[in-house]
Amino acid sequence: MSHTTHEHLLEALNWRYATKHFDTAKKIPADVWSALEKTLVLTPTSYGLQPYKFFVIENPAKRAELFAHSWHQKQVVEASHFVVFTARTTMTEADVDKFIHRAMEVRELPDGALHRYRDVIVSDVVHGVRGKIAHEWATRQAYIALGNLMTAAAVIGVDASPLEGIVPAEYDKILGLENSGYTTVVACALGYRSTNDKYASMAKIRFKTSELVQYI
Amino acid sequence: MSHTTHEHLLEALNWRYATKHFDTAKKIPADVWSALEKTLVLTPTSYGLQPYKFFVIENPAKRAELFAHSWHQKQVVEASHFVVFTARTTMTEADVDKFIHRAMEVRELPDGALHRYRDVIVSDVVHGVRGKIAHEWATRQAYIALGNLMTAAAVIGVDASPLEGIVPAEYDKILGLENSGYTTVVACALGYRSTNDKYASMAKIRFKTSELVQYI
Repeated sequence: MSHTTHEHLLEALNWRYATKHFDTAKKIPADVWSALEKTLVLTPTSYGLQPYKFFVIENPAKRAELFAHSWHQKQVVEASHFVVFTARTTMTEADVDKFIHRAMEVRELPDGALHRYRDVIVSDVVHGVRGKIAHEWATRQAYIALGNLMTAAAVIGVDASPLEGIVPAEYDKILGLENSGYTTVVACALGYRSTNDKYASMAKIRFKTSELVQYI
Repeated sequence: MSHTTHEHLLEALNWRYATKHFDTAKKIPADVWSALEKTLVLTPTSYGLQPYKFFVIENPAKRAELFAHSWHQKQVVEASHFVVFTARTTMTEADVDKFIHRAMEVRELPDGALHRYRDVIVSDVVHGVRGKIAHEWATRQAYIALGNLMTAAAVIGVDASPLEGIVPAEYDKILGLENSGYTTVVACALGYRSTNDKYASMAKIRFKTSELVQYI
């Protein structure tokens, strides 16, 4: 298989920025979006449990409703695609079983092949250390998906803007998530930058590498 | 600038897997590692605050110490590079000021140009909603970095394995992080897969797209 060079990777990561103004006339083509959707699905997670759901908001009326709870961030209504990341509110044995069943199906395993693995997972994410912070643990997995999506988008030339400044409880109401077992944690707008977005050319603010990365 | 095609992106994401056995003889070349280090630094974060530090463990003795608190995951000692992600334990006004100073320096702004922006951030991540969950909020940012790093690595053909199964408190002791304001949250081993790693060829376990992605 052919990989991208590390020079191209860095070009893409320097090209990206938190897009403030999207070109409302430019939509992400279906095949490109399909790759980004697959990117979300392929996100690596703890034990592979995927304790999240992604909502892609296409309905303009819904977007307008969400915009009212997004601190005036126009990306919600202007971007080609708008993804809301939700995470499990709790983790139950049924959640783990769902994953185990899927694993057995995908890998064509015989009955019982994953009994021990199931117990290990349950004793951690349901009844153990991670179970005590199940929603937060699930949220972290959703953030892996967010990081994955933003980097993947940059690499293929799609602009993105992460949005933490949203009101999760209002998003949940609008998306009908109350009592669904999932709750909104973050969002991401994707599309193509407007030529008028002055933020595109601003220098990136990052601490010095020596302050962020330490070798031991 | 030239971007990768979406077909290549998906090839890379399908090629990646949570590597269990690294080839201990293969090191990531310096220029490739440098790109991955820059990838970490370029991670997008909430307000751009970068409330984390990355520790790259080169010392074999330190790796062995960490291995003892990593649930027998050999990647800790076998991978070419081993990164420990740490996140701020609290957020103070001084943390925000450090960022504001850096922003003014990088963008060459006049005194006071960011006063209002500073107050907005402080009222959120220090005294507001995010301040109440400051460590967790910082942890989420570290997970964006983790997602970013794993995807970037895949794109340029470097194998990676995320490690949540570590004992953060023991890692903190070994890395001298106690009372540093940072605490271990997750780790990632990077390098090149061993040809003996049977996990490389196993089918990926993911829920059906229709179960993970919903269009509204």
